[in-house]
Amino acid sequence: MAKMRSFPVKIWETVSKAGREDPRRVIHSLKVGVALTLVSFLYVLEPLFKDVGQNAMWAVITVVVVLEFTAGATLCKGLNRGFGTLCAGSLAFFIEFVTQRPGRVFRAVFIGASVFLIGAVATYVRFFPKIKKNYDYGVVIFLLTFNLITVSSYRVENVLHIARERLYTIAIGCGVCLLMSLLVCPNWSGEDLHNSMVYKLESLAKSIEECVKEYFIDMETKADEDEPDKDDPIYKGYRAVLDSKSTDEALAMFASWEPRHSRHCYKYPWEQYVKLGAVLRRFGYTAVALHGCLESEIQTPKSVRALFKDPCIRAVQEVSKVLMELASSMKRRRRCSPDVLSDHLHESLQDLNAAIKSQPRLFLSPNRPANKVLSSMKTDPSALLEWRTKRDHPNHPKGDATDRKAMLRPTLSKIAITSLEFSEALPFAAFASLLVETAARLELVIEEVEELGRVAGFREYSEDGGVD
Amino acid sequence: MAKMRSFPVKIWETVSKAGREDPRRVIHSLKVGVALTLVSFLYVLEPLFKDVGQNAMWAVITVVVVLEFTAGATLCKGLNRGFGTLCAGSLAFFIEFVTQRPGRVFRAVFIGASVFLIGAVATYVRFFPKIKKNYDYGVVIFLLTFNLITVSSYRVENVLHIARERLYTIAIGCGVCLLMSLLVCPNWSGEDLHNSMVYKLESLAKSIEECVKEYFIDMETKADEDEPDKDDPIYKGYRAVLDSKSTDEALAMFASWEPRHSRHCYKYPWEQYVKLGAVLRRFGYTAVALHGCLESEIQTPKSVRALFKDPCIRAVQEVSKVLMELASSMKRRRRCSPDVLSDHLHESLQDLNAAIKSQPRLFLSPNRPANKVLSSMKTDPSALLEWRTKRDHPNHPKGDATDRKAMLRPTLSKIAITSLEFSEALPFAAFASLLVETAARLELVIEEVEELGRVAGFREYSEDGGVD
Repeated sequence: MAKMRSFPVKIWETVSKAGREDPRRVIHSLKVGVALTLVSFLYVLEPLFKDVGQNAMWAVITVVVVLEFTAGATLCKGLNRGFGTLCAGSLAFFIEFVTQRPGRVFRAVFIGASVFLIGAVATYVRFFPKIKKNYDYGVVIFLLTFNLITVSSYRVENVLHIARERLYTIAIGCGVCLLMSLLVCPNWSGEDLHNSMVYKLESLAKSIEECVKEYFIDMETKADEDEPDKDDPIYKGYRAVLDSKSTDEALAMFASWEPRHSRHCYKYPWEQYVKLGAVLRRFGYTAVALHGCLESEIQTPKSVRALFKDPCIRAVQEVSKVLMELASSMKRRRRCSPDVLSDHLHESLQDLNAAIKSQPRLFLSPNRPANKVLSSMKTDPSALLEWRTKRDHPNHPKGDATDRKAMLRPTLSKIAITSLEFSEALPFAAFASLLVETAARLELVIEEVEELGRVAGFREYSEDGGVD
Repeated sequence: MAKMRSFPVKIWETVSKAGREDPRRVIHSLKVGVALTLVSFLYVLEPLFKDVGQNAMWAVITVVVVLEFTAGATLCKGLNRGFGTLCAGSLAFFIEFVTQRPGRVFRAVFIGASVFLIGAVATYVRFFPKIKKNYDYGVVIFLLTFNLITVSSYRVENVLHIARERLYTIAIGCGVCLLMSLLVCPNWSGEDLHNSMVYKLESLAKSIEECVKEYFIDMETKADEDEPDKDDPIYKGYRAVLDSKSTDEALAMFASWEPRHSRHCYKYPWEQYVKLGAVLRRFGYTAVALHGCLESEIQTPKSVRALFKDPCIRAVQEVSKVLMELASSMKRRRRCSPDVLSDHLHESLQDLNAAIKSQPRLFLSPNRPANKVLSSMKTDPSALLEWRTKRDHPNHPKGDATDRKAMLRPTLSKIAITSLEFSEALPFAAFASLLVETAARLELVIEEVEELGRVAGFREYSEDGGVD
């Protein structure tokens, strides 16, 4: 009963969540509704029906298929559809011209052969990476139109007329789509791409800062889960970056179809955004490795970590500050400050270096009292045995599969790793080294943002634009 | 002239490359050609034309749009198309029933309103993640059919007839598609997904092994490029894994539409493949970090590295062997050997530990003669100044932009990183720690492969199945 009642609640949650995540979705839905109603008038209103008649259906189909969420996607599909229809019409007309004279059987054979040939070739062409990226839909429409016209030409006399009618109504459909997507509350792919880069810079900044801070707060409170928690701010921060390749590329592709909506007229460098995305992903991998230090099975004792807390946190704050500055300059579409790579970062790294140097004893591992801390994780050959015994019963009842999994994991970890008595400073060394690596990668990010600012013609840095 | 002649060569290369990469593409193209020719017969042959007539066009459209590369994708689209048409037909018939009585104006208004409402609602529904994932195409077709039928109902009397005819011909089209994709040389998404996992395990194994080996060969021969070389086997190995999220998910989605083509009848656990893919990506991030150690600006001197060469290489070979064993067991669809996590890995890690312990002096950084090696990379405040000066001339002539970039990079790196005199063993410590981390992550991979073997009902491990 409770389940029954919760069903509408669930539906309502899904409905409202989609709208809250991006309110433009509601507007887009209304736009589609209006566009469809508009093209329906072609059929319903008497004077319009006289002109286009039955073919009004093609306009309806076009609107349903072409009107996409962003202006770039709509343009891409609309132009592909128009151009595909045009090409197919021309080719079909040519074939019609060739087959005009001979007898019916010859025509049937010729039509069959050309349908087969063009079908196979067009399908094969769709596998070419360049065609697939930009013109896939155009080829589909080409094939569709070609077949429709060629096959109808067998029974209908005036194929040219069909082709022209179809082209007109598709043009009307595309026109309505472009009107709705370019002029009524347009959503630009280019802007989405730009904003997503700003968002990614910000989330990376937050993610690494959070990550280093968490490394230095007491580790006892942290549950040792292997699956990253979805709401963990660190994970959330870099996750947005890691899996963004396909989204970035699609947005850049659609953006390249969009007209430039600002003062410069040259081709906007969307490819540079894709490059920046790639560099950010590489930066993200270091963030993942840094996060891995938090989740690692061998941990440096708290007392040791505390020695390096301040320089590490200062260093990461500097890195994070640079990323935030880059994000804010991108957001305002201005070049970043010449001081973006400040002396502070350099100084904080030097402080970290000094701190490490001042504690040489730590990097000498054996026979130190701190070994006691690790004693609970020493070599445990019985664990391996235990694990094997369990594995030999694969038909373990399913009911406690989760219990088993939970139990299995620490056991396995013990075997693989913690039974070794590595120097306890080794994991910290890895952490510090990754932090330094982060600073090194930062420089590539700065370079790409700089390059983007240059080729995209962002305005020059000025003090009153301010660093916030 | 040479350019003109090279154009056909280029075309031919593109054509043959697409075929060589995956010969099934050629077969698929021929299949599409045959399917199109088959449905064209509906229109061309007299007895068939009598039955379906003008509506044969819908069969042609269906084939062009529905016949996809893999069986799963075709089924997904075909069933979505069929079900969408059916739903739309029912709803349109209901609306037709409601508007039967009243006058023309009322009908026009009612049709306009329902087109708007259904258009907006259906578009909004497409934003729901669950609908978007599985039924996006179905909703589009629903909208398309609903509009066609509702709008035609204004002028045509027998809408039920239109709807039925359309459904028949679409069913014929879908039938031809399913026939071609399920029975004639079918390409299964599920098999692609399975093979891609095997391939990924193998490439990760090769990638990390290559990476560690390269760390210990002489570093002088290596050019210090920041952009990873596309043909670098290390980069190639993990790249296949990193950006695989969307492909994996699409394949798993299509595979879930495919009928099971083996003995068990229960739902095949495609989701487990997606999980395994996620774990492999996480493993891949460690591989990236390990690769980062090769490209890092601060490097441990060769003499120091040589001390740890053997245990490191042994350890990575053990890790790589485990991955290869997992790949080979997945390839044969059998559970992996109970000895997959062998004592050898454990031993090699202990050897590495012993080697690190035996050289405690190395982790004491300051005032050692090896500092000489790093002397060329010492603090260089002039570099920062030089960099700033250059940045202040953003309108630098474009011609030497690449020269400038090449020059800028080492300079910047010097500022950020190498001007610090970190302990030279620190980067090695990071490398060793990441290697140990790799072994720890390996365990998660084993667990997911095990789980996959269990839920997918792979056959039990047997000695004669052999470890190769």
